[in-house]
Amino acid sequence: MTCKRIVELGARAYPIHIGPDLLPKLGAHCAEEKMGSKTLIVSDDHVDALYGGVAEESLRSVGLVTARVTVPAGEPSKSHDPLIRIYHAALDAGLERSSSIVALGGGVVGDLAGFAAATYLRGIRLIQVPTSLLAMVDSAVGGKTGINLPQGKNLIGAFYQPSMVLADTATLRTLPPREFCAGLAEVVKYGVIADAGLFDALEGKTPEILMNDDALLEDIICRSCEIKADVVRDDEREGGVRAILNFGHTLGHAIEQVSGYGRYLHGEAIAMGMVYAARLSERELAFPAKDTERLIRLLKALRLPVTMPDLSWPALMEAMRHDKKKTGGTVGFVLAQSLGAVRFGCALPETLLNEVWEQNRDTGESRAP
Amino acid sequence: MTCKRIVELGARAYPIHIGPDLLPKLGAHCAEEKMGSKTLIVSDDHVDALYGGVAEESLRSVGLVTARVTVPAGEPSKSHDPLIRIYHAALDAGLERSSSIVALGGGVVGDLAGFAAATYLRGIRLIQVPTSLLAMVDSAVGGKTGINLPQGKNLIGAFYQPSMVLADTATLRTLPPREFCAGLAEVVKYGVIADAGLFDALEGKTPEILMNDDALLEDIICRSCEIKADVVRDDEREGGVRAILNFGHTLGHAIEQVSGYGRYLHGEAIAMGMVYAARLSERELAFPAKDTERLIRLLKALRLPVTMPDLSWPALMEAMRHDKKKTGGTVGFVLAQSLGAVRFGCALPETLLNEVWEQNRDTGESRAP
Repeated sequence: MTCKRIVELGARAYPIHIGPDLLPKLGAHCAEEKMGSKTLIVSDDHVDALYGGVAEESLRSVGLVTARVTVPAGEPSKSHDPLIRIYHAALDAGLERSSSIVALGGGVVGDLAGFAAATYLRGIRLIQVPTSLLAMVDSAVGGKTGINLPQGKNLIGAFYQPSMVLADTATLRTLPPREFCAGLAEVVKYGVIADAGLFDALEGKTPEILMNDDALLEDIICRSCEIKADVVRDDEREGGVRAILNFGHTLGHAIEQVSGYGRYLHGEAIAMGMVYAARLSERELAFPAKDTERLIRLLKALRLPVTMPDLSWPALMEAMRHDKKKTGGTVGFVLAQSLGAVRFGCALPETLLNEVWEQNRDTGESRAP
Repeated sequence: MTCKRIVELGARAYPIHIGPDLLPKLGAHCAEEKMGSKTLIVSDDHVDALYGGVAEESLRSVGLVTARVTVPAGEPSKSHDPLIRIYHAALDAGLERSSSIVALGGGVVGDLAGFAAATYLRGIRLIQVPTSLLAMVDSAVGGKTGINLPQGKNLIGAFYQPSMVLADTATLRTLPPREFCAGLAEVVKYGVIADAGLFDALEGKTPEILMNDDALLEDIICRSCEIKADVVRDDEREGGVRAILNFGHTLGHAIEQVSGYGRYLHGEAIAMGMVYAARLSERELAFPAKDTERLIRLLKALRLPVTMPDLSWPALMEAMRHDKKKTGGTVGFVLAQSLGAVRFGCALPETLLNEVWEQNRDTGESRAP
């Protein structure tokens, strides 16, 4: 079984294929979409060792001329030197305007190779082949690409839509469990912001999900991509409603930044950020406390942290202020009214932010059963 | 007198202001278009010394917070290090998503600062303030931005439309005459590809143009921008008709490349390329020989070269082949049927290319009266 969805963006609409053992069919899907005759597979050294050969063989089997380039695994590769390395590999491989770049890997590879595709010869085709859960449900869909500067994450980039996304759920079997669980945080987020039914399903099937049940994974990834695709369709360049995708991210980003990136995975920081946002939502939008308890219970069952971390609150506040400025337009918190319904751009008084932080720092975990 | 035109690109439509002494009104025009509160002026050291102060004062007079950054004048600045310098200046100036970058200068500054604006925070507003004739009639309009790699020109870039173009024709008075004339080559091109009337006007008013007549310059720049804007509107990302803008550029680019950039200005190489393309057009599309003679006469009157340069023909052929591959899609020459009407994508036999080269190498100049 596989699932296929189309992201509706007019002339830039693209298909998403999701299912087990899709990677060997990459070439066939590329041929279907007339992807040009040359392609460069960009990956990190870990993922390339596991899947680079399968991807390349599949592309060659349909007559494509391929080349491969790898960057070291990890966030530091989202920077200028690896980017230039990809440009040179693209030139060496003779990539033309009609050629394509295949981004094979997690979020780092997707963002980096995506930005390379967006800017090489002013833009060539991009095929996202996410191999982490986070990339499948989040970064591979939606068109955000970019790299970091020493001054901050994602400061350089482009909105650039892929021509195709292919998510082989079988690749999740080699994903470290901690990363898998961190990816689930974003799935929980989709439940909170847009789909109470998805939230229910996650609650009801936690053990099966953690055991990597193929059909179930396909379902929740597919539903996550649908929600993200709908939001992106309505607001491609992040001027409005796309902000709801940042539920839990205001504090989450600050936690990542203040803790120095690496201590928490993105999804873990978002899990804590969602608990905080839910508590704020209780105070501001009468979000039911029992639903915050459900959220905490679900996140804990998915092995995600729910207690506020031991970090300097003034430092977190400062980071949140900076994050708001950077993202512009959509200042303020995303808060939930009920499971499946949120509001964005909520400006909140600092006293409330302080108070809820203090309360959850002390009691966040103990409140959960 | 000033002229205002709108480039019609749907949600990304933008105004072009053309006329003498517009630079002191830059701030007022920015305020009109609600350009955000912070702006970074990017320029080269030559242009900054002449006009940076006026531009900054104008922006400050309407309450904008401004900063300035300069790169060395010249093509080598279209590269990664100056780009990163601009990113850092943007961060130091606290530029946010709602801020803007002003590109004050010629084509190099416009392409470089344009690419910085396209990629900083995934894209902020860009205001093109071209100060060279070439930039006014060509590079500032149309949304091509980018930088060079050691392997070739414009290999990295983005299609990114400005929010406004402001061309102060008074700045042309400080442009070196040779550069001014090179810019006129592109104006002649617009006549050939789209407007026999413009061609006639250039023929009839050559002395006035060379004497920098304000009203006349405003007219021909305005008309050039209109033609370019129309073509770009119909083909923003260069899949089809935009190719006609490359009349004379197939050989022209090759001449620039083989001669090593610097020996000929872009417009000079294009002038020779147009003569060659016109001769090919005689053979292939029955373009009248007398119109080629008119073209040669006009280019010479504008102090532009019309005889084929003393360069290796095999090297030029190789460069043309490479150029075609790189630009993809639109393979082949742009040829004229008559003044004002061209066809693109004309594939020509190598024997014809050789023959016309040989003929014009010997007699190109002597044919002109």
